[in-house]
Amino acid sequence: MAVLSCTPRTIDALLRDLPETWVNANEGDDTWSPFDVVGHLIHGERTDWLPRARIILEHGEAVPFDPFDRYAQFAASQGRTLASLLDEFAAARAENLRQLAALRLTDADLDRRGRHPELGVVTLRQLLATWVAHDLDHVVQISRVLARQYSDEVGPWRAYLRIISGAQG
Amino acid sequence: MAVLSCTPRTIDALLRDLPETWVNANEGDDTWSPFDVVGHLIHGERTDWLPRARIILEHGEAVPFDPFDRYAQFAASQGRTLASLLDEFAAARAENLRQLAALRLTDADLDRRGRHPELGVVTLRQLLATWVAHDLDHVVQISRVLARQYSDEVGPWRAYLRIISGAQG
Repeated sequence: MAVLSCTPRTIDALLRDLPETWVNANEGDDTWSPFDVVGHLIHGERTDWLPRARIILEHGEAVPFDPFDRYAQFAASQGRTLASLLDEFAAARAENLRQLAALRLTDADLDRRGRHPELGVVTLRQLLATWVAHDLDHVVQISRVLARQYSDEVGPWRAYLRIISGAQG
Repeated sequence: MAVLSCTPRTIDALLRDLPETWVNANEGDDTWSPFDVVGHLIHGERTDWLPRARIILEHGEAVPFDPFDRYAQFAASQGRTLASLLDEFAAARAENLRQLAALRLTDADLDRRGRHPELGVVTLRQLLATWVAHDLDHVVQISRVLARQYSDEVGPWRAYLRIISGAQG
């Protein structure tokens, strides 16, 4: 929960004061801009993490999760400003963490199992750990998209910058 | 400068409220923890970016940059708290951005050349672009180190999480 509560501030700090060209930049065809990622995170708050936790707690493996729509943000974010999306994400996350705390999950609850439509049996503990890692994955994505706008500008330093060269580290 | 001024807040949001075990976690032998990265960023503010810009402006290619010590933070951060390092980084960055603005760099200045001890001739424009990309590279590194603490906990979702699987995206 410490990480989950920080993510809205992290993404706000990365993006809120940037010029539009940075916020709307992507990595080429069929890749997402930082603006798209914020919409995706909002959709996750609405339909993915806590709703799936409730399905596990109420139905166990009997009811598989609804499939997650990875493209919902393209319609939902249309005409919105980045600032309003950042505010919505922060509010939705705060509300979800309040609801998560109210569930007072025990260790036994965390071991309860549900059914992912593609991955099969998963535990509530795995779902919540994935919520955290998914946040961080998108912090990485946003940072990478921004940095790659300077792929040429950095000149010979490119060799030292894993974020641009794509080298794993 | 928009990105450079945001980075201290981004890293603060990622780290300040986390338990110590997360802040000191790394990716194995000879890898850095988030705590180490903050010390490295401070050392960069003191010895790398702005000092190198001044060398270019004052000496051009005649005087190569001092080599950067990638390990300075291990001694410099000893006994420090993360909170004090975050504060020091924010203050040093703010002061450097004030000094950078005071240089009132022109397009002609940005094309001026200096000499990197390993990479050879570089421009001031490339140095400043690298400062930005280097910030984002370490935001990625911190996020990745944190996420990988959950490599096992996410269970079957591992396949979907590039931050853990290491797949490029």
